[in-house]
Amino acid sequence: MTTTASPIRNGVDTATLFATLDAVKGDTDIAKFQFRATNRWVSGTHNRSTIHGFHGAKQEMTHREPFTFDADHPPVLVGSDKGPTPVEFLLHALAACLTAGIANVAAARGVNLTEVSSTVEGDIDLLGILGLSDDVRNGYQQIKVSFVIRGDDPDKLRSVVEQSRRRSAVFDVVTNGVPVLIDVDAG
Amino acid sequence: MTTTASPIRNGVDTATLFATLDAVKGDTDIAKFQFRATNRWVSGTHNRSTIHGFHGAKQEMTHREPFTFDADHPPVLVGSDKGPTPVEFLLHALAACLTAGIANVAAARGVNLTEVSSTVEGDIDLLGILGLSDDVRNGYQQIKVSFVIRGDDPDKLRSVVEQSRRRSAVFDVVTNGVPVLIDVDAG
Repeated sequence: MTTTASPIRNGVDTATLFATLDAVKGDTDIAKFQFRATNRWVSGTHNRSTIHGFHGAKQEMTHREPFTFDADHPPVLVGSDKGPTPVEFLLHALAACLTAGIANVAAARGVNLTEVSSTVEGDIDLLGILGLSDDVRNGYQQIKVSFVIRGDDPDKLRSVVEQSRRRSAVFDVVTNGVPVLIDVDAG
Repeated sequence: MTTTASPIRNGVDTATLFATLDAVKGDTDIAKFQFRATNRWVSGTHNRSTIHGFHGAKQEMTHREPFTFDADHPPVLVGSDKGPTPVEFLLHALAACLTAGIANVAAARGVNLTEVSSTVEGDIDLLGILGLSDDVRNGYQQIKVSFVIRGDDPDKLRSVVEQSRRRSAVFDVVTNGVPVLIDVDAG
C-alpha cells in the first residue's frame, strides 16, 4: 500500500486500519475476542458494572483504565435514579456501534464526515416485565434509530450508514438475538 | 394491603412496588414507556451518548440529570480507548437488568439478599464485522452470565434468579431480538 496524503480521515488511522485487516487475513485467530463486564448489586435496583479486561489478538488485554457504570430505575419505577436503566444502556450500545462503524467505513472509503448524530427510541410496554400480561413481551417492541449525517455527497453518506448497519455487532445481536447461558452459584 | 414490619427489603420499597403494580392494573396505559438515547460522533470510533428524557406513566419525564457515556474501540481495534466498546455496554445492560430484577423479585417474595455479583462474557469473532467472512456473524456467538448470589435459602435464591430471567427486558431483547428501523437524514 502506498502512503496517502491523509492516512488519518475522520479521526480514523486508515493506514493502521488496513494493516490490521491484513494482519487478521494472515492469522484469523487474531479476530477471536471475548469481552466482559462484571456487575455488583448495590441496593434495590441500583447496581454497578466494571469493564476492564478482555481477550483479543491471542492475548489478555485491558482498557487503559477500569470503566464503571451505575444502572438503576427512576423513581417512577421504584428506583433511586442513580444511573440510567439497563434498557437505556442497550440503546446507547446500538447508537455507539453504528456510529463507530460509520466513522470506520467512511474513512476506508475516503468519505469525509463533519457530523454524525443520532437519536434512538425504544418502545416498551412494562406490562410484560411487571408480570401483568402474558401477551406482552418483556423487551422493546420496536427500536428506531434516526441519524443526521453530514459531510461529503449525501448518497455516499447514506451508503456508509447502510454498510455500517450490515456490519454492526450490536445491530446483529439486537435484531437477531444470541444464546445466553446463565449460571448460578447460590450459597 | 397491611403495612408490614419491613416495607424496605434489599433496598426495595416493597410498599411502593406493590402500589405501583396496583396502579398499573387500574390503568394499563401507565405501563407504556419510551426510552431514548442521543449520540454524537466525536472522532474516529469515539462517540458519546446522552440519556436524559423518557416517556412513561402518560407523561414526559427526565432522569435527575443527563447521564453521558463515551464509547470507543481500544488501540488493538484502531481506536483511542476513550470508553468501552459498544458490545461491552451490551453486556453491562444485560447484567444490570438481571440484577435489578433479582433485587425486585427477592423483595416481592420476602427473600433477603446479602450479595449479588456477576460476570458476563461474550464471545465474538471479528471476522464478521471486519468483512473478512460471510460465514461468521457480526455479533456475539454466545454470552455467558455467571451469578454469585448470597442471602436466604439457596433454592429460593436460584428461583429468584430464574424469575428475573423470565421477566428481564434486556434478556428478552438479547436472546429474541427486536425490529430496528434506521432513518437517515443525509444532507
